[in-house]
Amino acid sequence: MALIVQKYGGTSVANPERIRNLARRVARYKAMGHKIVVVVSAMSGETNRLIALAKEIMPDPDPRELDVIVSTGEQVTIGMTALALMELGVRAKSYTGSQVKILTDDAYTKARILSIDEHNIKQDLDDGYVVVVAGFQGVDANGNITTLGRGGSDTTGVAMAAALEADECQIYTDVDGVYTTDPRVVPEARRLSKITFEEMLELASQGSKVLQIRSVEFAGKYKVKLRVLSSFEDEGDGTLITFEEENNMEQPVISGIAFNRDEAKITVLGVPDRPGIAYQILGPIADANVDVDMIIQNTGADGTTDFTFTVHKNEMNKALNILRDKVQGHIGAREISGDDKIAKVSIVGVGMRSHVGIASQMFRTLAEEGINIQMISTSEIKIAVVIDEKYLELAVRILHKAFELEEA
Amino acid sequence: MALIVQKYGGTSVANPERIRNLARRVARYKAMGHKIVVVVSAMSGETNRLIALAKEIMPDPDPRELDVIVSTGEQVTIGMTALALMELGVRAKSYTGSQVKILTDDAYTKARILSIDEHNIKQDLDDGYVVVVAGFQGVDANGNITTLGRGGSDTTGVAMAAALEADECQIYTDVDGVYTTDPRVVPEARRLSKITFEEMLELASQGSKVLQIRSVEFAGKYKVKLRVLSSFEDEGDGTLITFEEENNMEQPVISGIAFNRDEAKITVLGVPDRPGIAYQILGPIADANVDVDMIIQNTGADGTTDFTFTVHKNEMNKALNILRDKVQGHIGAREISGDDKIAKVSIVGVGMRSHVGIASQMFRTLAEEGINIQMISTSEIKIAVVIDEKYLELAVRILHKAFELEEA
Repeated sequence: MALIVQKYGGTSVANPERIRNLARRVARYKAMGHKIVVVVSAMSGETNRLIALAKEIMPDPDPRELDVIVSTGEQVTIGMTALALMELGVRAKSYTGSQVKILTDDAYTKARILSIDEHNIKQDLDDGYVVVVAGFQGVDANGNITTLGRGGSDTTGVAMAAALEADECQIYTDVDGVYTTDPRVVPEARRLSKITFEEMLELASQGSKVLQIRSVEFAGKYKVKLRVLSSFEDEGDGTLITFEEENNMEQPVISGIAFNRDEAKITVLGVPDRPGIAYQILGPIADANVDVDMIIQNTGADGTTDFTFTVHKNEMNKALNILRDKVQGHIGAREISGDDKIAKVSIVGVGMRSHVGIASQMFRTLAEEGINIQMISTSEIKIAVVIDEKYLELAVRILHKAFELEEA
Repeated sequence: MALIVQKYGGTSVANPERIRNLARRVARYKAMGHKIVVVVSAMSGETNRLIALAKEIMPDPDPRELDVIVSTGEQVTIGMTALALMELGVRAKSYTGSQVKILTDDAYTKARILSIDEHNIKQDLDDGYVVVVAGFQGVDANGNITTLGRGGSDTTGVAMAAALEADECQIYTDVDGVYTTDPRVVPEARRLSKITFEEMLELASQGSKVLQIRSVEFAGKYKVKLRVLSSFEDEGDGTLITFEEENNMEQPVISGIAFNRDEAKITVLGVPDRPGIAYQILGPIADANVDVDMIIQNTGADGTTDFTFTVHKNEMNKALNILRDKVQGHIGAREISGDDKIAKVSIVGVGMRSHVGIASQMFRTLAEEGINIQMISTSEIKIAVVIDEKYLELAVRILHKAFELEEA
């Protein structure tokens, strides 16, 4: 008998029929003798509908009130899910984030979980209930409703699993696991039966949409065993995210290829090369809450340096304006330019630690197809490159083949 | 400067445009220097939509989970209303029933308010906020979400006014006050500028839909000054429900005429006339949670008695089945019959206390039109009769005329 947290996303609760399906799966696990906590998102489309409603009243809605409105989405699904379980004869009880209580900070619309009071839920599980918890939401120390931001239901699932010391946190999605890359780009992509936590973290941060990065970080921090499964198939073991690296000769060097079309590149040319330049450029960007991903600085021969970084495409113009208004004159940069026709491709694998030449193999593969590399960033288990957006699919396909990731 | 609670029903918050209208009115009151608490219902239609959704999953939904689902209706409107106020530059803050905390018993879907914690709201009002509170909902001692049942938002408004010792509780509806009778039946019906609490209570219990009876009872118990106003007109003082009777010669004897088409009559014929018969008949009815309104017992000459009572039309068959299955044989009744083609008409007025002959004037008026009276029930300030349903409009019109209630 195990304690399992199952998290279901918006497509898994999109309508009453799917909620009934979900309930049937949960009932099967319950019948096996497991203790089950179900974490659900809002019905797909509902969160966007509620945001649109709020924006009809106030184009830039006050975040506290936006969270009051948006959090009703999951509140409806927890009730519906509990009813569907009861209809199958399974005792069930729903909890909103604030009923649990999932204590967060007060950063409305992007709150972070501080602690979870697991006491009542443990009691309910002992009493034979399936407990249904609203994902994506919590409550701050003053009783205000908060939401965790997009994808936050995954984080709720992992955090519940950590608080309850669950045996496994199962994330049900519309895919049946983690693939070597997106099968829509490379039809030969293969489902991984296992992947290490570090690799998953790199894949998520490099653009894989299967799991939300904050939930993976959370799982890593609290050593929660995660499993990604399909909510539309009853067979299959999905992909287990493990903490142990296997010392297996047959383990491939590269586990997966992630990519991301959402970034734009900003280049600050001809900056006098002196200490503090990076801070003078990126400080005002950070102050404006613009997230920066890759950062590269190259020193030229003439005593000036070129400084390049990437931001989300939606924030490129905001970042360019900040630099032109507040930074360019100040630091004496020659030119500031933006390019949103780029894409990032990353290869990820713990095998890199014990294999040399992975980077050069990647660069050679791209060069043979005439794909120019604009930026490079590496970690111990990842190599990411920025290339022209138009070569993205080609690059992913040839790398997938070069590193022999195809279906065996 | 006054402290005013304003309650807005579903039609007043039916869409963003109406919510903006509501916010403009609130902003005007605020600009006059008043402290304002706004209580809102769910957008009209929303509660029914949510109930239908729950019933798609479970035809007879578990009441705890139904309340979790249904209470999201008001949660959306409090957020929307607060946003609309902010958009006008008014500081505003929303509270769900559980955030307030409006403590209720645990009778899901028809909970009763036990107490209200007014502390935080008083602080917010002192700090210059308009406070927006979700009607219809509360929380029990264990933190479970409860709803007060249909019309419960009026009760929330009155209860908030009582807890805050507000100067006035304004109930905004789609009519501009309390009328001598329903203007759709009698076009000459006149809006009352004042009505006593007792009269309002009788009118509400006799079928007037303007105010929900529990909210009137609550207002009476806590001496809350109530005012009924139109949410679609900016002019007009509506109808004030007062606690003082005016000793005014010009005060009419009758204040209003209420009617109700929702009842059905059940007759138990030929019951042996012995003590305990009423309990033996009505006990099983009460045990089945069927509400009984009027009750009449007449003793005949042959040692048997006829026993008649009214229930809601929807429950007539349920009541008949109970009587035929469990009661008839037991008490030896000759026959049990039901009639749902009846209507109840009531005249109400504190003037009855000081005027004689009101009942006979009512009976004569009906007799002159050939309308037969099937049942009669009286209180100190009310006379109610049951007649054939087809004479309802006629009866209301001639009584309205006979008691000179027309527009002056």
